[in-house]
Amino acid sequence: MKKKAIVVFSGGQDSTTCLFWALKKFDEVELVTFNYGQRHSQEILVAERIAEDLKLTHRVLDVELLNQLTKTSLTREIDIEQEDGELPNTFVPGRNLLFLSLAGIIAQQKGFTELVTGVSQTDFSGYPDCREDFIKSMQMTLNLAMETSLTIHTPLMHIDKEQTWELADQLGVFEYVRDNTLTCYNGIIGKGCGECPSCKLRQNGLEKYEQRRGE
Amino acid sequence: MKKKAIVVFSGGQDSTTCLFWALKKFDEVELVTFNYGQRHSQEILVAERIAEDLKLTHRVLDVELLNQLTKTSLTREIDIEQEDGELPNTFVPGRNLLFLSLAGIIAQQKGFTELVTGVSQTDFSGYPDCREDFIKSMQMTLNLAMETSLTIHTPLMHIDKEQTWELADQLGVFEYVRDNTLTCYNGIIGKGCGECPSCKLRQNGLEKYEQRRGE
Repeated sequence: MKKKAIVVFSGGQDSTTCLFWALKKFDEVELVTFNYGQRHSQEILVAERIAEDLKLTHRVLDVELLNQLTKTSLTREIDIEQEDGELPNTFVPGRNLLFLSLAGIIAQQKGFTELVTGVSQTDFSGYPDCREDFIKSMQMTLNLAMETSLTIHTPLMHIDKEQTWELADQLGVFEYVRDNTLTCYNGIIGKGCGECPSCKLRQNGLEKYEQRRGE
Repeated sequence: MKKKAIVVFSGGQDSTTCLFWALKKFDEVELVTFNYGQRHSQEILVAERIAEDLKLTHRVLDVELLNQLTKTSLTREIDIEQEDGELPNTFVPGRNLLFLSLAGIIAQQKGFTELVTGVSQTDFSGYPDCREDFIKSMQMTLNLAMETSLTIHTPLMHIDKEQTWELADQLGVFEYVRDNTLTCYNGIIGKGCGECPSCKLRQNGLEKYEQRRGE
């Protein structure tokens, strides 16, 4: 039986590497991107460009809903707290819970059995919904909820940024990932601004890998 | 420590009975209703009226998103299938998965630890995301996702409609639930139209319970 996969796709280094991993591993691959008013609508455009480039079916799901779930909006009846000069904190815990639920529902509706996500527990973020124990539990919950046999694949779970570059290289897409993905907080594709934390993390891994490869 | 609960609330018999159960059991109760373009926007109004009546904080969350997840809309790039004279099937598997994820995120954001939902595996529906094994797994997944200690309570899990009326009676709200909730597909509060499947199920349980009580 043909294996069909939905890749949770942001157009960044991690999910693009996962996408190529999935293309090698599965017979059919489709992409889903979640639009929740990201720092950069740029991110959605990059995801769309890559999807188009690879001629893949790509779905952008509007999850503006997430903005209804921030602490600020949940307590607005009482008081709106916002530190002077700071943006309201719009990070929502459980975001991957929500994204994987939605991706799982899409897979069920389309008869796909594989889900792929670029979460990593070696990642600096430390979000609990990036860890393997969460992913295992999520897979069980999805399958109990819908009587499906979905498998959630996390090719980056136990590797760091350097090894993610190595994986892209093994998949033959090192240059493609380096030049076409967006990780930078300032919205600059490929090399990035070089200054933001996200660029530094990416650049650091890249340099380490290039050094190792050069030896 | 005070126990605070979020009740997943539709304004129907089941979730209203659960609401009164929660009011007896917990120190603080808030309500969340999911608006996904229900058969009757009437349903939202009924939920709002009950919340107001009981002076409870009530949040109506817009999950129009669900309409992006139906089979019809997911395959619209390919073809739109719709039987002659039939409405497109807008039931989405995994709906409780989504609702409990969202309710869990709200609880986490507000520091609440209890979730209450009126799902029942004795219910005629047979949806897998109404069963106890799903609920247990969902609770585990929520807590792994957000490092919380949420408990999902399902007071109706193992009881039928007749026993749900009995529970309302034991809670001293039999008449309130009977006269103020909406179950009817045709949007008629309380007694309902008496003709739709939902009214018949409710009425059947009510008659059985009234008979038993009368004996």
